[in-house]
Amino acid sequence: MKPRVMILLGSASDFRIAEKAMEIFEELRIPYDLRVASAHRTHEKVKAIVSESIKEGVEVFIGIAGLSAHLPGMISANTHRPVIGVPVDVKLGGLDALFACSQMPFPAPVATVGVDRGENAAILAAQIIGIGDPEVRDRVSELRRGFYEKVRRDECQVLNSIE
Amino acid sequence: MKPRVMILLGSASDFRIAEKAMEIFEELRIPYDLRVASAHRTHEKVKAIVSESIKEGVEVFIGIAGLSAHLPGMISANTHRPVIGVPVDVKLGGLDALFACSQMPFPAPVATVGVDRGENAAILAAQIIGIGDPEVRDRVSELRRGFYEKVRRDECQVLNSIE
Amino acid sequence: MKPRVMILLGSASDFRIAEKAMEIFEELRIPYDLRVASAHRTHEKVKAIVSESIKEGVEVFIGIAGLSAHLPGMISANTHRPVIGVPVDVKLGGLDALFACSQMPFPAPVATVGVDRGENAAILAAQIIGIGDPEVRDRVSELRRGFYEKVRRDECQVLNSIE
Amino acid sequence: MKPRVMILLGSASDFRIAEKAMEIFEELRIPYDLRVASAHRTHEKVKAIVSESIKEGVEVFIGIAGLSAHLPGMISANTHRPVIGVPVDVKLGGLDALFACSQMPFPAPVATVGVDRGENAAILAAQIIGIGDPEVRDRVSELRRGFYEKVRRDECQVLNSIE
Amino acid sequence: MKPRVMILLGSASDFRIAEKAMEIFEELRIPYDLRVASAHRTHEKVKAIVSESIKEGVEVFIGIAGLSAHLPGMISANTHRPVIGVPVDVKLGGLDALFACSQMPFPAPVATVGVDRGENAAILAAQIIGIGDPEVRDRVSELRRGFYEKVRRDECQVLNSIE
Amino acid sequence: MKPRVMILLGSASDFRIAEKAMEIFEELRIPYDLRVASAHRTHEKVKAIVSESIKEGVEVFIGIAGLSAHLPGMISANTHRPVIGVPVDVKLGGLDALFACSQMPFPAPVATVGVDRGENAAILAAQIIGIGDPEVRDRVSELRRGFYEKVRRDECQVLNSIE
Amino acid sequence: MKPRVMILLGSASDFRIAEKAMEIFEELRIPYDLRVASAHRTHEKVKAIVSESIKEGVEVFIGIAGLSAHLPGMISANTHRPVIGVPVDVKLGGLDALFACSQMPFPAPVATVGVDRGENAAILAAQIIGIGDPEVRDRVSELRRGFYEKVRRDECQVLNSIE
Amino acid sequence: MKPRVMILLGSASDFRIAEKAMEIFEELRIPYDLRVASAHRTHEKVKAIVSESIKEGVEVFIGIAGLSAHLPGMISANTHRPVIGVPVDVKLGGLDALFACSQMPFPAPVATVGVDRGENAAILAAQIIGIGDPEVRDRVSELRRGFYEKVRRDECQVLNSIE
Repeated sequence: MKPRVMILLGSASDFRIAEKAMEIFEELRIPYDLRVASAHRTHEKVKAIVSESIKEGVEVFIGIAGLSAHLPGMISANTHRPVIGVPVDVKLGGLDALFACSQMPFPAPVATVGVDRGENAAILAAQIIGIGDPEVRDRVSELRRGFYEKVRRDECQVLNSIE
Repeated sequence: MKPRVMILLGSASDFRIAEKAMEIFEELRIPYDLRVASAHRTHEKVKAIVSESIKEGVEVFIGIAGLSAHLPGMISANTHRPVIGVPVDVKLGGLDALFACSQMPFPAPVATVGVDRGENAAILAAQIIGIGDPEVRDRVSELRRGFYEKVRRDECQVLNSIE
Repeated sequence: MKPRVMILLGSASDFRIAEKAMEIFEELRIPYDLRVASAHRTHEKVKAIVSESIKEGVEVFIGIAGLSAHLPGMISANTHRPVIGVPVDVKLGGLDALFACSQMPFPAPVATVGVDRGENAAILAAQIIGIGDPEVRDRVSELRRGFYEKVRRDECQVLNSIE
Repeated sequence: MKPRVMILLGSASDFRIAEKAMEIFEELRIPYDLRVASAHRTHEKVKAIVSESIKEGVEVFIGIAGLSAHLPGMISANTHRPVIGVPVDVKLGGLDALFACSQMPFPAPVATVGVDRGENAAILAAQIIGIGDPEVRDRVSELRRGFYEKVRRDECQVLNSIE
Repeated sequence: MKPRVMILLGSASDFRIAEKAMEIFEELRIPYDLRVASAHRTHEKVKAIVSESIKEGVEVFIGIAGLSAHLPGMISANTHRPVIGVPVDVKLGGLDALFACSQMPFPAPVATVGVDRGENAAILAAQIIGIGDPEVRDRVSELRRGFYEKVRRDECQVLNSIE
Repeated sequence: MKPRVMILLGSASDFRIAEKAMEIFEELRIPYDLRVASAHRTHEKVKAIVSESIKEGVEVFIGIAGLSAHLPGMISANTHRPVIGVPVDVKLGGLDALFACSQMPFPAPVATVGVDRGENAAILAAQIIGIGDPEVRDRVSELRRGFYEKVRRDECQVLNSIE
Repeated sequence: MKPRVMILLGSASDFRIAEKAMEIFEELRIPYDLRVASAHRTHEKVKAIVSESIKEGVEVFIGIAGLSAHLPGMISANTHRPVIGVPVDVKLGGLDALFACSQMPFPAPVATVGVDRGENAAILAAQIIGIGDPEVRDRVSELRRGFYEKVRRDECQVLNSIE
Repeated sequence: MKPRVMILLGSASDFRIAEKAMEIFEELRIPYDLRVASAHRTHEKVKAIVSESIKEGVEVFIGIAGLSAHLPGMISANTHRPVIGVPVDVKLGGLDALFACSQMPFPAPVATVGVDRGENAAILAAQIIGIGDPEVRDRVSELRRGFYEKVRRDECQVLNSIE
């Protein structure tokens, strides 16, 4: 199945953050692909992956990176598709990566989610895809409902533990 | 024309940031609407605007807010549509609002752009809408090309000024 | 016994912070209740808990949350009762939650205590209740006196250890 | 009329922040008093004011201070009444005062509101007093309703300006 | 022997930082004393210790505290002797305590050293005492010389390890 | 009269901060001297000034500097006299200079006061000198008493203004 | 004359920072060139300028940029020549740009200088060029000597002003 | 072989950061030397090492230091050779050292790399040396190519692990 989301990792060590997104995409049955390609190391490759991905029908990009975290911004510079950035905490609590993702100048925005929040990046990607795809939208609703159920069960467990 | 983007302001004083987005939407011919409705002050209203907007066909929300900046997060909690957050610098250089927008927990992401970056929020909204609307996509490309032209002209002016 | 304080957790994982408050309430014999209900996940529920709590006579609310930490602010938006916020350190040393709690706009204040300081939230709640309840006030005095005794004993132990 | 709230200023230069609180107290018809008495400069006086205030029936204290901002904490150390702290932006964007107010150790909490937010301190004080005083509670509700009206009018003005 | 330096701890848990100072004082043969007495918990005691210490001939005070860290400032408010502050890292990397110590208003300075730097507080105290006591001054010189020797030996060890 | 305090400026542009200290020294009748000599620019000179100053009887040094603010640390490395550091706000709100002054390693402490607080540096210097000089000590007490008087007058003025 | 340094601006609005560098290069008689080419907007151009510059003999690059400030990092990714980064204060005091420049991952370093420090970037470039060019090295020495002279004259002026 | 790079450590405990640089220099066959000599502790030695190093032909200096991190700045003040600074995370996430290295005043720049990034300092030193030495330049290219190969292999491993 053709990928609708392309996940790019700045470094193989960021894979643990990508896995959080992948789990959500599995649950929402959204096909995705994944590459490792740092903005600073193999920029030609970033560009190639982006243009190739677009031809294959990728609708949303997710860039996951720590430190200077240029990867999401570089993807944004190479496409008119929306780009989601996940700042990774490598140093300084992830503040460097959070700033690098969010503080992008005009007209190359990066849709930044929280530090290490791969799973929220996936939800956001699904919401974006869901605009034109009611089935995905329904699955996001379902996932959220399920999550609320879990919150409720957690509460019961907590409440039981204190009685 | 029915709005495709709903801009919500946390306070009327944030209007100067909204104007940056509105200018871009005019240029891209994307119909939008605008409301003032703080998350902390009139939350019922936020919810009403959101569900009404969805019925009217709004595809993307933009929440603009400073300080604790709960507005984008609250919109996100009330819809499965993508929500873009623009942190506004009221105090602490806007760091409080940047954290409030980006650091959202699962599963209620806010697509955060830079501090005071209303114009980037508009580009991001257009990129999202552009997935299903090639005309909007083309207009984003055109706008970017035009901007690059401007960058080039700025350079000429700068270079001329130093010769 | 009817609860005079309602503790709301943004997530079951914040329970360890709530326990610090619960211990103090036990000691001060102030009846309390506890719920898990994130602002971003189950906002309807937050509202329901708040209005129900008020009917049952709850005098003070405590919201415990990390990250964007909208929960205390959302409670504040739904009641004219005082709301205490406890920022939890999940990321960025808790700076995000500290800002989200304290930097609330007019007229929805959150009485913010220190990062992870569930026990101080309980003292503050007791001080607030104590305005109209001399017995609670006396018990707060007693608890503080006891604590000072402990400080003195700690000092003796430290001083003995260095002689 | 006997004051129910005592406002203490760390320095006469913080008076502009106190005025925001005073305006709200006037509107809510809550009698208050005001003193200038830095924690570091005239601590004896702080203590004297606090114990005298309590005898006169003061229910809530508000400490307004910048920089190291010990004043609210020092009041808290001298009373079992609730103490609200307003951090003032003198240097570092007010971050120093925000930390000094909020990060109080056990068992001397300060109910911290946002940087320079004298008006929110007043609302919080009124909410606390309102627990035992339904009239004050009603006036807080009214003030909030009035404020929401203003938000709505601001919106109309903004919306009119863009048509 | 009468103490020339009084070390005050905000909490018994800060003892590990005090030990660093005590070790230096032992080496420099400067008599010192130590008390546990938080500014927020037992302020009367802080004041009593300070005035008693001065009568006994204490020349310099060291206040060691974390979080809001009012202790050094409170000592400063109670004496005209110089007060050294050691911010302790309890939360936020110790930034809260560093600000609370250093950002004191006029005319109550705290001579702030680095986060957790008990040993530097002792050196500073010895330098201050050394102004009027050539023997202490010589011992500080000696200690520093010994330290430089150690640095040199460390270097040798490092250099040997790489050959 | 021989100077007892040597004030070193990192840059002539820091003179406005030095003036605050000078005013206090005039009031306390403590002779001082002043030099401009950046640590990074004319380090030989810093060293020469320091050793010459000591020969002339200087008891305390004050280093005033912004940015990387090595000057106070460099003075500290060249003398066993106490060194007071005044961080100046040139960039980043003075955070860079505050860290550079306070975070000195063992055994070269800098007695750091608040950002731009030249007047507190002077008080601290006077407190240090006052250990061995009862007259200076008395003048510091007097200055503080005068300041408290001023605080009281400010209060009267503020209180009168609101009646 | 062929440029030995290529200055790239992220935006024409950063020209005021470039001018500081240009002034130094004029004084040191080091030929330079200047372009405006944001990393996020015209990345193809950045690459073209870099490879063309290298062919023309450029030895050092200077990237000047604010916000996410990817420009210096992108230059670094396209050349094995040393790249100097000048973070510009546009938002957050320039902290975002400082992190973006300095926190580059392996193996694409950016030699970062202080926020808005165009003149230091020029000195650093001259020091680098000076390794292989004794004349440039001598001119840097001369410039520094001249600067020290100026510091001395500033001191005289300051000292005269206080007598 | 005569060293072309001199690595100075602020403290023997920073050796683990130096090792990252040393490994790169071994791979690039650039002769280097290493010393331990804190700016604040043995400044005479720093100066002696620097002038001796220059006589022996050292082209680039690397200063590695934490906390106030004056070492790189002090080297810069003693030479016209380029100086690279590596801030080490000892406290505050390394923010203190990052500011101390980068925020140097005119005309004493420090080429600052990321927190704990010894390996990037080595790459930068090699790029600087490479200007006049094509063999070193080629080896840097080779090292980078090899690194890109590794990135590609990491990707394969990651991709394989998810299939």
